[in-house]
Amino acid sequence: MTNDLADAQRAHLARLDQAYAALLAEHGYDGVLLYSGRAHRHFADDQHASFATYGHFLHWVPLAGLEHSWLLIRPGQAPCLHFHAPRDFWHLAPQLPEEAWVEAFEVVYQEDGEAPRLPRGHFAVLGEVSEAQAERLGAALNPEALTLALDELRVRKSAYEVACLREANRRALAGHGAARDAFLAGGAELDCQLAYLKAARIRESALPYQSIVGINAHGGVLHYQHYDAEAPRQAHSLLVDGGHRYRGYCADITRSWAGPAASDDYRALLAGMDRLQRQLVGELAPGIGYVSMQERMHRGLAELLVAHGLVKASAEAAFETGITRAFCPHGLGHLLGLQVHDVGGRQDAQGRPLPPPPAHPALRLTRPLEAGMAITVEPGLYVIPMLLEPLRQGATAGMLDWARVEALGDHGGIRIEDNVVITGTGNDNLTRDLEASP
Amino acid sequence: MTNDLADAQRAHLARLDQAYAALLAEHGYDGVLLYSGRAHRHFADDQHASFATYGHFLHWVPLAGLEHSWLLIRPGQAPCLHFHAPRDFWHLAPQLPEEAWVEAFEVVYQEDGEAPRLPRGHFAVLGEVSEAQAERLGAALNPEALTLALDELRVRKSAYEVACLREANRRALAGHGAARDAFLAGGAELDCQLAYLKAARIRESALPYQSIVGINAHGGVLHYQHYDAEAPRQAHSLLVDGGHRYRGYCADITRSWAGPAASDDYRALLAGMDRLQRQLVGELAPGIGYVSMQERMHRGLAELLVAHGLVKASAEAAFETGITRAFCPHGLGHLLGLQVHDVGGRQDAQGRPLPPPPAHPALRLTRPLEAGMAITVEPGLYVIPMLLEPLRQGATAGMLDWARVEALGDHGGIRIEDNVVITGTGNDNLTRDLEASP
Repeated sequence: MTNDLADAQRAHLARLDQAYAALLAEHGYDGVLLYSGRAHRHFADDQHASFATYGHFLHWVPLAGLEHSWLLIRPGQAPCLHFHAPRDFWHLAPQLPEEAWVEAFEVVYQEDGEAPRLPRGHFAVLGEVSEAQAERLGAALNPEALTLALDELRVRKSAYEVACLREANRRALAGHGAARDAFLAGGAELDCQLAYLKAARIRESALPYQSIVGINAHGGVLHYQHYDAEAPRQAHSLLVDGGHRYRGYCADITRSWAGPAASDDYRALLAGMDRLQRQLVGELAPGIGYVSMQERMHRGLAELLVAHGLVKASAEAAFETGITRAFCPHGLGHLLGLQVHDVGGRQDAQGRPLPPPPAHPALRLTRPLEAGMAITVEPGLYVIPMLLEPLRQGATAGMLDWARVEALGDHGGIRIEDNVVITGTGNDNLTRDLEASP
Repeated sequence: MTNDLADAQRAHLARLDQAYAALLAEHGYDGVLLYSGRAHRHFADDQHASFATYGHFLHWVPLAGLEHSWLLIRPGQAPCLHFHAPRDFWHLAPQLPEEAWVEAFEVVYQEDGEAPRLPRGHFAVLGEVSEAQAERLGAALNPEALTLALDELRVRKSAYEVACLREANRRALAGHGAARDAFLAGGAELDCQLAYLKAARIRESALPYQSIVGINAHGGVLHYQHYDAEAPRQAHSLLVDGGHRYRGYCADITRSWAGPAASDDYRALLAGMDRLQRQLVGELAPGIGYVSMQERMHRGLAELLVAHGLVKASAEAAFETGITRAFCPHGLGHLLGLQVHDVGGRQDAQGRPLPPPPAHPALRLTRPLEAGMAITVEPGLYVIPMLLEPLRQGATAGMLDWARVEALGDHGGIRIEDNVVITGTGNDNLTRDLEASP
């Protein structure tokens, strides 16, 4: 760890300290106990499922994957980390790294992973804790108001957090390059995925989300969940939505690549989507509403579809009739942080819900942008038969060049996704910055 | 799928049909509803943990990873598979393969994954089902006696199941060879793991258990859970415990390899452990007790340690004083099937518990061998400081050549594990058969 990062982390922890003290006072608690969580066993089995450490715990303790540990926060006192260190020869016991942040904590090594006893007072306990456990602790279990306030605290990232997001981006981009190379060398989806992991130096279960690696039509399945072990005969396209984690902070990047059998339409749309994505990113600044950006994306998609002749109508008509929503049913982006779809995207600063508009039910970020927010910007364009089929009826039937839309179906879809931090005046594209000068 | 396998599977399903009918009658049920299960979301997140389909469901339906599906078994009627086929453009919808076994089922495609309504009668529901759900169904939830009886039904494998275990072994062995090559080429643990996955054509989350890939001292951590991204400067040894799944059936194979920096002691012990493992397998036949085989392993370890001078006492003394138990604290093996540690290993044929003896608390198979059992045979020898330290006191202090034991610590340990099926007269080593003629 560089000294700069250590200094930034110190400032991050000091800011957390203050913010927690204010929130706990406001909500009437003497302190809060955060539980890291633990992996679950499969039903009627002795093997465990994969695991993700609770976000609010990671906000303080940068050890993604840590289980059975507890963090007690009390205003005016050093945060106390009850670190699970079992005497166990079956597993390699977790060890605290020799890093500067550890000094900010009081550390208690604990063999059994049980919750610590709480001092007298009014405490909350947050995390995957049972009601019985909370009762034994005498603490309020996951009180909603406090949880929403802590979620809100994660919305604006510190300089330390931005540095971590940047490093996660750097590692993920190494994976993306390797996946593309494996594809162009004739690899199957599984080969692309494994090449990604090898270059990014990460195992599948440590990723913040399961990478989407879709060749050809699979690129049009938004959360495509398999990795084919056989390569198709014709390689039209590859879509890779792959991330990374650095000290808990997630990258979430998508790249789309033309294969040797890509059509001219696909190549042209790929270039057009890249332009559109950069244009959308260029408009991001504090005060801009993300719901209006979602509409900007759809107007851009409409223009693109019309310009390339897939839609034979005005861009206005393509937008108004919902044609573009059939080509892209997902949101333009979401908050990014300790979770890939980070908390707080659909609430206002007071924790009141901001549901997405009916036309864009999948949009995960509905609030205006603020300096410090880290977001994804991921316009997409897909051939999804289930959504296009209804367009064959009524007014829209004659507005599409169906033969060309169907031919594009072999290419699945296009998504280009960067990770962007909103600054005081505009934004900082972590992903493109690193691509330009790796 | 070959015709042979399809025929064997038909016979397997017919046998299940009969056995379930008899058991349901015996336990007073008109039928049983088996739930596949579903992946769990991480706490306060929208990402899911990895998932394993319920074993008793897989016993009928060979689709590992299938979620939200239900199987209703009623004597005298075709098993009814409520197959989850959501109308969903976000994911690739599961599809039934075009294979002969599907004909044995009545299939109901179901969009929502909800439990089917049960006919009138006395039913049980098995799987990860809530009490509220069972109450709505009007069914007994996971009754213990029936569950134990169905566990017992999985103990002796059909010809179809043995064929599946053999195929899983074939695929896993491809991985083992590639992991060894990656190690000898200077790779880190992560590289060995990824080479394994690439050659075995499987993703990490589809494995029956997390592969153990330990270089040097990590080979001595029995369930070592990481993959270092950096290779050590000196490559002493590699231990890989890696499996596979074919139609739900698990392989579980361990191989240990000498690296360029391996010591003569390690190489000699590796050869000795290979001989011991083959010798132990040679003794397996119906009627042999696995607790006595566990003791045979320890006597063999004692002889080996004495022969190579690590223990300076009689083999009898090395055995009686517990020295060998410090070098190998795990069991000789376990049942293998639809779970890597398959059900039924610590019960008798009537479902009564058969706990392991106090000297061998980790032994997972405590019953006598029977024809049709599939088991692992995995003697091990490790340098585990936490277990060796107590031997420095008392009578055993002078019985070990501590300098050589400590030097061996850089090599971690040795485990050699095959998958073996007990036949009517002896056994069939699936792993070595395939290694000899791949």
